[in-house]
Amino acid sequence: MGAGLVGSLWAVLLAKRGYAVDVYELREDPRQAGFIGGRSINLAMSTRGWRALEKAGIENKIREVAIPMKGRMMHDEAGQLAFQPYGKEGQAIYSVSRGGLNIELIRIADQYENLRFHFAHKCLGVDLRSNTAHFEHAADGRRVSVEAPLIFGTDGAFSAVRRSFMKLPRFNYSQQYLEYGYKELHIPPLPGGEHAIDKNALHIWPRGQFMMIALPNIDGSFTGTLFLPFEGRANSFGQLQTDEQILAFFEKHFPDSIPLIPGLLEDFRTNPTAALATIRCFPWCYEDKVLLIGDASHAIVPFYGQGMNSGFEDCSLLDELMETYKDNWDKIIEVFNQERPRDANAIADLALRNFVEMRDRVADPRFLLRKEIEAYLNEQYPEDFLPLYSQVTFSHTPYSRALKEGLAQDELFDRILAIEGIEANWRENGELGEVFREWIRERRG
Amino acid sequence: MGAGLVGSLWAVLLAKRGYAVDVYELREDPRQAGFIGGRSINLAMSTRGWRALEKAGIENKIREVAIPMKGRMMHDEAGQLAFQPYGKEGQAIYSVSRGGLNIELIRIADQYENLRFHFAHKCLGVDLRSNTAHFEHAADGRRVSVEAPLIFGTDGAFSAVRRSFMKLPRFNYSQQYLEYGYKELHIPPLPGGEHAIDKNALHIWPRGQFMMIALPNIDGSFTGTLFLPFEGRANSFGQLQTDEQILAFFEKHFPDSIPLIPGLLEDFRTNPTAALATIRCFPWCYEDKVLLIGDASHAIVPFYGQGMNSGFEDCSLLDELMETYKDNWDKIIEVFNQERPRDANAIADLALRNFVEMRDRVADPRFLLRKEIEAYLNEQYPEDFLPLYSQVTFSHTPYSRALKEGLAQDELFDRILAIEGIEANWRENGELGEVFREWIRERRG
Repeated sequence: MGAGLVGSLWAVLLAKRGYAVDVYELREDPRQAGFIGGRSINLAMSTRGWRALEKAGIENKIREVAIPMKGRMMHDEAGQLAFQPYGKEGQAIYSVSRGGLNIELIRIADQYENLRFHFAHKCLGVDLRSNTAHFEHAADGRRVSVEAPLIFGTDGAFSAVRRSFMKLPRFNYSQQYLEYGYKELHIPPLPGGEHAIDKNALHIWPRGQFMMIALPNIDGSFTGTLFLPFEGRANSFGQLQTDEQILAFFEKHFPDSIPLIPGLLEDFRTNPTAALATIRCFPWCYEDKVLLIGDASHAIVPFYGQGMNSGFEDCSLLDELMETYKDNWDKIIEVFNQERPRDANAIADLALRNFVEMRDRVADPRFLLRKEIEAYLNEQYPEDFLPLYSQVTFSHTPYSRALKEGLAQDELFDRILAIEGIEANWRENGELGEVFREWIRERRG
Repeated sequence: MGAGLVGSLWAVLLAKRGYAVDVYELREDPRQAGFIGGRSINLAMSTRGWRALEKAGIENKIREVAIPMKGRMMHDEAGQLAFQPYGKEGQAIYSVSRGGLNIELIRIADQYENLRFHFAHKCLGVDLRSNTAHFEHAADGRRVSVEAPLIFGTDGAFSAVRRSFMKLPRFNYSQQYLEYGYKELHIPPLPGGEHAIDKNALHIWPRGQFMMIALPNIDGSFTGTLFLPFEGRANSFGQLQTDEQILAFFEKHFPDSIPLIPGLLEDFRTNPTAALATIRCFPWCYEDKVLLIGDASHAIVPFYGQGMNSGFEDCSLLDELMETYKDNWDKIIEVFNQERPRDANAIADLALRNFVEMRDRVADPRFLLRKEIEAYLNEQYPEDFLPLYSQVTFSHTPYSRALKEGLAQDELFDRILAIEGIEANWRENGELGEVFREWIRERRG
């Protein structure tokens, strides 16, 4: 159920293993209808996502249209820039168009003879006890019911399959919204078609309680996104009603962005203000017959760039479980349901935590110092120290372990940043190495 | 919507102020049909609940049929008893029958000419934008729709009104189940009609990871309740399938209860194993037109005996807001929605925390020592020290403030219980007073 990113990728992996797959999707076929965008932050593909694409056999095809972003480019109120790399030389996250990637996944899926798409089918609910899904045709309202031995809910944060779980006894569920909304703003290419700002960076205008970001597109444009509280006295969407208010707000906080966004007022009025939710639930399965994956069971806020990546990792992990347990779905679903939610919860927490980092801490000199020392420690002690960001973004370390490591790293840096005079010449400061080795000893002990 | 405890009490308070009130209830009229019980833990009425009953004018009537429980009576594996008072001399919580109280509240409500009950009406949902509730008659399936300027959702943990809130943008919601279930077991009166065990106590059989409790009824019986994990290797409902397993479990863990529960095996098979949920949501209102109160917006686990009391306190607080703001429902709902959820969240947390206390810590000598010292400090310094339990149970202190105080008290007792030799002759230990006064100074500073 659902032919979004996770649904179509997962369909490919099932079809590759010879299963007969029917994919039902609410929307029209995006290959004909075009992808309905306008409210989606660009995707930042990283290591976990690439592995899943590799399994699906389309990694290279997507790499061709992906733009590497090697670090964050911070814009301060005066328009001054500061660059901060995400990882080591050669490491990057990749800006990818959601629509383009989705269409590509549907194309590759459609090449399997044992896989069929059924677009424009609205799921009305799933009868869990009889494994039957009920649909309504978008066009004529005709209803159909389909029975299947295995049903996968890949139908996103507002999953219709999950809605059917709500009636089960002892189903744990939570949906929590941020008090922030977001709005897309378009940064067009220069007249010559080039990108108006450095295309190999994720641009951030961090402003403490709010921020704007921009990710590059292959047509030379950027997709900008403003994150701002919905309500509040100052600096909230609620306070930006008139053209004058919007312009004054941008002139005060994002002056260097104004020439980049010629349609600012138009975009602001036209584009919706969208909400940001974290959704958690448990269990993710009904017996060995129905399983929720991707946003359907764990929707997160976008601030770690891991929403799609974690959904794709679900697919990779299930693929490995198929390898291990063959057709024993009882076991596959049991193991996945037992082990994966811990990691989904961890990345949900990390994503919430990263919002504060992006909008506030990236502008803090002590945070930047920490990042530099992190890179240095990783270089000096590659076996003993991999920064949290790299574990999440450039490794396959389970998110829950990364989160735990991250908390230990916070503790390490509480000590390092307390070293007197650490700001100046820290490379020559002998205490740094001592504190680090002591921390390593404690962890091994 | 809902003529349970909170619904019928709230209807009385509205009717008293002259509002025309229509109360819709899913079930039949319990005055004719009898109250459907069998799955409800007895109620423990305490100070907050009494105040609301006083406002409704039925405090005295209920006092006549309530049984004071002055403390906890702990039963160990050998059947040894230990009593621990809940508060000061004269303080008690009161065992009340849910059904009896509900019928009494409906009776008093029905005396108002401006109040009408509509039983056997199943709510199918509320159209929030048009203030219209849709019902189905239980008897003949006939449907009716009713419009009202103000709708109160007092329809409990599985509220149909709240279900209509789920579709609102940015509605925060969480339902979390304990991994424990509960089962009612009946302790009948002695042949002469007397209670088989001390009727002026709440009996607890604390066993670490599980427990049984029993509350007295006016007919000489007790309602016992066994709390046990649903699943697990040992000591779970899942492992108690045969008569032999059930008996062996009781013989090992609750031997003194076996003669008290003659229908043990029958009760065990017949009574359902029920689940325990904490439900939180926000906001509690839709504009100034629909408000959720009681379990509909904040269902909690029963371990602090505050489920009904907190729902009744909602009614008292709303009654005070009606006094302050008259018919200005815009303001009443706004203030209530802004202030009350904080306290509801606090009592939800406290109730979860108290489960550990009841099943485990009440059997710990250091915990019992703490309780004794708490009583002593309260006696010596009544202005400066009121134990958390008393704040929750015997005061009107907002739950959120009580929780905060409780955490500070935990910190105090970490220090007190670390005093060397505190176990022996603590009344003569000068350090106790020093530590306490130091704690007070810190709090004032």
